[in-house]
Amino acid sequence: MTDTPGSPRPGDPTASTAPAGPPDVAGLQRRLAEFAAARNWQPYHTPKNLVAALSVEASELVEIFQWLTPEESARVMEDPDTAHRVGDEVADVLAYLLQLCEVLGIDPLAALNAKIDRNERRFPV
Amino acid sequence: MTDTPGSPRPGDPTASTAPAGPPDVAGLQRRLAEFAAARNWQPYHTPKNLVAALSVEASELVEIFQWLTPEESARVMEDPDTAHRVGDEVADVLAYLLQLCEVLGIDPLAALNAKIDRNERRFPV
Amino acid sequence: MTDTPGSPRPGDPTASTAPAGPPDVAGLQRRLAEFAAARNWQPYHTPKNLVAALSVEASELVEIFQWLTPEESARVMEDPDTAHRVGDEVADVLAYLLQLCEVLGIDPLAALNAKIDRNERRFPV
Amino acid sequence: MTDTPGSPRPGDPTASTAPAGPPDVAGLQRRLAEFAAARNWQPYHTPKNLVAALSVEASELVEIFQWLTPEESARVMEDPDTAHRVGDEVADVLAYLLQLCEVLGIDPLAALNAKIDRNERRFPV
Repeated sequence: MTDTPGSPRPGDPTASTAPAGPPDVAGLQRRLAEFAAARNWQPYHTPKNLVAALSVEASELVEIFQWLTPEESARVMEDPDTAHRVGDEVADVLAYLLQLCEVLGIDPLAALNAKIDRNERRFPV
Repeated sequence: MTDTPGSPRPGDPTASTAPAGPPDVAGLQRRLAEFAAARNWQPYHTPKNLVAALSVEASELVEIFQWLTPEESARVMEDPDTAHRVGDEVADVLAYLLQLCEVLGIDPLAALNAKIDRNERRFPV
Repeated sequence: MTDTPGSPRPGDPTASTAPAGPPDVAGLQRRLAEFAAARNWQPYHTPKNLVAALSVEASELVEIFQWLTPEESARVMEDPDTAHRVGDEVADVLAYLLQLCEVLGIDPLAALNAKIDRNERRFPV
Repeated sequence: MTDTPGSPRPGDPTASTAPAGPPDVAGLQRRLAEFAAARNWQPYHTPKNLVAALSVEASELVEIFQWLTPEESARVMEDPDTAHRVGDEVADVLAYLLQLCEVLGIDPLAALNAKIDRNERRFPV
């Protein structure tokens, strides 16, 4: 990045990590990588640790729903506090999934697309 | 979509579910929804069941890594069979996460972007 | 129980739920059942909900260890606060496991004993 | 098993690991420790790995129930195959929980008893 007048200074986190426009997977992976690097968290981000963290966040989602009936679970977004909590845990699951994919060199969207292809052959209609 | 001769007919599942170009989140959610609808699986897809399935798939990822040292876990993609298994489980986690978001009306990428914003305020460098 | 002066009244929870002597599995299951009944929590204790709660508690154990190295994880009881937290989560996992077994009519110790028998045949030395 | 006068043959696993009488927690922990030692599995049994394995087994229980209605989940023991599978997964969860407790020096029954005491104060009737 060239440090021209008027442009963000190098190291300015808001410049490098909050791009304009709707976020995409690659952009989010970049933000997550920069976030971890700025805090020296990469040594903790072994694949083994990231899958553990992913499963812990998935369980925090389960915890919101564990005592609800199926019907109550379908109305969970009607309460603003619970809706926020669900969105927050969804974000955490996705954060660890994208960081795992980054570390392992997996393209998550391509992996899912290929999996749906396989499932269409495996469960023909 | 223009229905020119030689192009897929409207309603052709391969056309609607396997679009050309790299998959994006919305397209994958559409494929997943069509896949579930074609098999009458939607009644099973309560938010409560989807979060349970998500956590089960996350644990299947953990299972691959559970006895590995941190160093072994970093080399997990060197073995083609294990690499395939990891990609497969990543796809399963993402599949349930996207289906959950679809059912609950959550935009997963926006939720994660907002969460990184909050975390940048919460953990200042 | 004879209700002599000075002895606990019938229905006194401390009398019925905190027996003298070291606890055993059956006694703990009784305490857990009385605890749930006194709070009208049994309708929530479907097998499906209990296994979800069990997995959530297991993940709370994982959360304590998720960023630790193998060596750090082996020293986790040296810090009194962490030791207490680990014991607490172990108790929660066991609580839901015993309640699940109670609801389903499974003898957990006999089930494990039989499983070890099978594993000895499956993994001969 | 026919036994010759005197004692079990040296190395006879059933003699050393399958004591007469109903199993208790300490006896099961002994069997599990001998089982792991005979296969040189102790190096894998760090607390971090054991909690991961515990959570994986808990999720295998969840998997059995994930698409069931609450009512179906209550009848899960009526099918012999499913009943066996549930008992098997219960045994696996308990096996890792007991091994974790052994490695960390936690008495699981005492931990649960103390936890119920705390919960009775925390959630008074």
